[in-house]
Amino acid sequence: MKASELAGILGGVLEGEDVEITACGGLEEARRGDLSFCKDPKHVKLVQTTQASAVLLPPDWDHGAPCAIIRVQDPNHACMTAAKLFAPPSPEREPGVHPTAVVDPSAKIGEGVHIGPFTVIEKGAVIGNGSVIEAQVFIGEGCVVGPDSHIYPQVTLREGTKLGRGVILHCGVRLGGDGYGYNTTFENGLPKIEKIPQLGIVELGDFVEIGSNTTIDRARIGRTYIGPHTKIDNLVQIGHNVKVAGYSGIIAQAGVAGSTQIGSGCLIWAQAGVSGHIKIADGVQVGPQAGVPQSLDGSVKYVIGAPAESMKEFGGRLLLPKLFAKLKAEVKELKARVAAK
Amino acid sequence: MKASELAGILGGVLEGEDVEITACGGLEEARRGDLSFCKDPKHVKLVQTTQASAVLLPPDWDHGAPCAIIRVQDPNHACMTAAKLFAPPSPEREPGVHPTAVVDPSAKIGEGVHIGPFTVIEKGAVIGNGSVIEAQVFIGEGCVVGPDSHIYPQVTLREGTKLGRGVILHCGVRLGGDGYGYNTTFENGLPKIEKIPQLGIVELGDFVEIGSNTTIDRARIGRTYIGPHTKIDNLVQIGHNVKVAGYSGIIAQAGVAGSTQIGSGCLIWAQAGVSGHIKIADGVQVGPQAGVPQSLDGSVKYVIGAPAESMKEFGGRLLLPKLFAKLKAEVKELKARVAAK
Amino acid sequence: MKASELAGILGGVLEGEDVEITACGGLEEARRGDLSFCKDPKHVKLVQTTQASAVLLPPDWDHGAPCAIIRVQDPNHACMTAAKLFAPPSPEREPGVHPTAVVDPSAKIGEGVHIGPFTVIEKGAVIGNGSVIEAQVFIGEGCVVGPDSHIYPQVTLREGTKLGRGVILHCGVRLGGDGYGYNTTFENGLPKIEKIPQLGIVELGDFVEIGSNTTIDRARIGRTYIGPHTKIDNLVQIGHNVKVAGYSGIIAQAGVAGSTQIGSGCLIWAQAGVSGHIKIADGVQVGPQAGVPQSLDGSVKYVIGAPAESMKEFGGRLLLPKLFAKLKAEVKELKARVAAK
Repeated sequence: MKASELAGILGGVLEGEDVEITACGGLEEARRGDLSFCKDPKHVKLVQTTQASAVLLPPDWDHGAPCAIIRVQDPNHACMTAAKLFAPPSPEREPGVHPTAVVDPSAKIGEGVHIGPFTVIEKGAVIGNGSVIEAQVFIGEGCVVGPDSHIYPQVTLREGTKLGRGVILHCGVRLGGDGYGYNTTFENGLPKIEKIPQLGIVELGDFVEIGSNTTIDRARIGRTYIGPHTKIDNLVQIGHNVKVAGYSGIIAQAGVAGSTQIGSGCLIWAQAGVSGHIKIADGVQVGPQAGVPQSLDGSVKYVIGAPAESMKEFGGRLLLPKLFAKLKAEVKELKARVAAK
Repeated sequence: MKASELAGILGGVLEGEDVEITACGGLEEARRGDLSFCKDPKHVKLVQTTQASAVLLPPDWDHGAPCAIIRVQDPNHACMTAAKLFAPPSPEREPGVHPTAVVDPSAKIGEGVHIGPFTVIEKGAVIGNGSVIEAQVFIGEGCVVGPDSHIYPQVTLREGTKLGRGVILHCGVRLGGDGYGYNTTFENGLPKIEKIPQLGIVELGDFVEIGSNTTIDRARIGRTYIGPHTKIDNLVQIGHNVKVAGYSGIIAQAGVAGSTQIGSGCLIWAQAGVSGHIKIADGVQVGPQAGVPQSLDGSVKYVIGAPAESMKEFGGRLLLPKLFAKLKAEVKELKARVAAK
Repeated sequence: MKASELAGILGGVLEGEDVEITACGGLEEARRGDLSFCKDPKHVKLVQTTQASAVLLPPDWDHGAPCAIIRVQDPNHACMTAAKLFAPPSPEREPGVHPTAVVDPSAKIGEGVHIGPFTVIEKGAVIGNGSVIEAQVFIGEGCVVGPDSHIYPQVTLREGTKLGRGVILHCGVRLGGDGYGYNTTFENGLPKIEKIPQLGIVELGDFVEIGSNTTIDRARIGRTYIGPHTKIDNLVQIGHNVKVAGYSGIIAQAGVAGSTQIGSGCLIWAQAGVSGHIKIADGVQVGPQAGVPQSLDGSVKYVIGAPAESMKEFGGRLLLPKLFAKLKAEVKELKARVAAK
């Protein structure tokens, strides 16, 4: 597409050569034929060295560019719009059941549902209208998938799992595995480890999205619950009987131990760990790699470190070596003064 | 089921209305028709606000409840018994090989074995009597699965993996992947990275259970070994040539690096990391998120922090900011006193 | 094989009985019939207590052994050579497409390619000559797999993923999942969370190897890129738009957040976390469990701790409790002296 045509679509103004644009990319990775974007003068160096053929810039940008410029009000947004024009369309998932899929006759498949090759759907499962179940998925007995959901390849839902409307599960998500629960007793001094039956289910609210290879365990009794609009990233672990209220986020490789309750609008950052049987109040953020051993009542909105504390406490702890060196010097000087008296 | 009937089964005494019970659940999540339980008066508020229709309480509970009460000696245990009555039965896995499974003619399939749809069993593999291999599992050449084991969907066992009796593998477990091992040399100043062949296997003892998406690498030479009755949670990483003795536990997202030996009865808590080529003595516990850089001889039974230390040392470290502030004030006062003399 | 024959193959000299050798193993795990090895006198105790039938030792070893000895220049290397003799051959993956595989007619399958059972290859995908695609793999629309690559069972490549030559992907690897990206706005005080389209791809350079259950997200725009010869271990998370230059290593359970750039020859150790939108200079190593909040320019070659700092700073911090106790004692003494004056 010509840069002039693109400028028209984006409601922008072209300056410079009317080059051919075929893709979008960040300033540093852009190649000939790419459109890039910048809104902040602090990245002026990246603009000056970009290999892009054209760059989206705000109206008041006065640092020039080594290529064509398209001036727009919101370069980020314009680039997303342009990217959609160039992106190959998402793979089509036409309604219908692939002939290789194994679907139990008692399963209820809604209208307009796509079921991909080698997918298994067991007894009594229900798939809501318009949902896409891709290849090689396993949906166990009595599971319910809400309408307009999208399950990517190689997801497993153990029996009884319930998903709301518009849920997205990425490749390798595991819902409903047995939680970690054992009773250890001793007989004649020898340990005897007995598995505690995990009888509950996993339930996800509407518009929940779960990243690749994340695991959520079924409840011991009752349900493990993820509330509506909560978004969970890749490789996260959610223990049995955890409850996450709606509109929260949990970033990659974080873990939440059994029976913990996380409020609404919380954000658990990457690699953080939240202990079991505690409560995190609405709106609290747990920083990356933080470890939370006890309940957080919301009086501190952001915690960090392990055990987690406020930014002020954490910052003070980081400063200790410097403060200590200073105090040590003071003591040394004081000693000398005392000795001299 | 009527509460009175349930009380009979559980050996308890009903107080209040003979309500209909259809499920079990924790005090906070229980809904109309649910049976809940409480054994500890410290949760009295949760009892008072529960939506459950009946609650299991100990004989000496004198705080009442907003619903029917069933008094029993052990409310936790009674609730588990009741939960089993209400839980839907586990999916039946009848003996037989699903017609879509691809089983090599040289594989030996024991009596009463279930093999699910789209499962692949390669040359020379052996499946012990009574084992359940669910859908979409991959069992490579020469693997041995002991009797009475249960392999959930989408597990992969690379060639030569050996499982004992009564092993449970949850969805997405990866056994026998190549360990991380490379030789880097330099030729004319350029690095040359060569893969070190990973020639060994993974072996699991009897009654080992492994959680969803956990990975255990095959040995470079010899075997990576997990001893009997050891229980491993989700998303755990076990490096090549690791040996874990029996009756240990490893909680979610922990990692054990190559060639390390973990004793019997150890507990490695969530997100902890244990370095390679070290030994952890029998019965030692490694706390959550701890990092263990060197061998632990068992003189300290519980370590925490990174690098890991005793609770006393760790606690002292946490107190430093307060102690420092106190010392700083003392020095200030002392300075003033010296100046005044 | 007789130890004498083995000594001949390895260019070594046999001392002691000409025993039969059937396998290789580490000193501690070796059993009767095994060959073991040791090059360092510091492991003399392990040699003295090994159950191996023969042990490879260097020419100058003068501590004896409780079994036959084969003296060689490089015991490690010789043991690897011997291990290859005893290891069962890798499973054969003959050229050809398994009759159960679902391969779109528009996909281009190169010469000598193996495609295993239940594998799905979608529209327009390209598989290079000599590549092995094992069982139950999913390769989405328009993916490109370079020649001589090896994809183990149950890997998923979402649409558009590109792999170079000689790439190895272990079981459960997830390439091209949507990155974590949402816009949150408020309407009448209520949050509205919108998914940001993830329009880019994942691209891996030549000879990249990725461990089991690792996840690499597709770019928001453009590509997430892993450079040639980079080796990534198990359960690692790589966010959208990350760029890793060639010849780097990322060890198990580490995570790299979105848009970060990692240089050439870097090593990110296990469980470390690298924040988003930063740069790690060539050759920098990030220690285990470290947390890197900002760019590292290479002036420090190894960082550790969270937030990450130099070994010197980190070591100083670890020493604080001891230094503090000493200073406290000094202040106490000084106080007494001042009081006495």
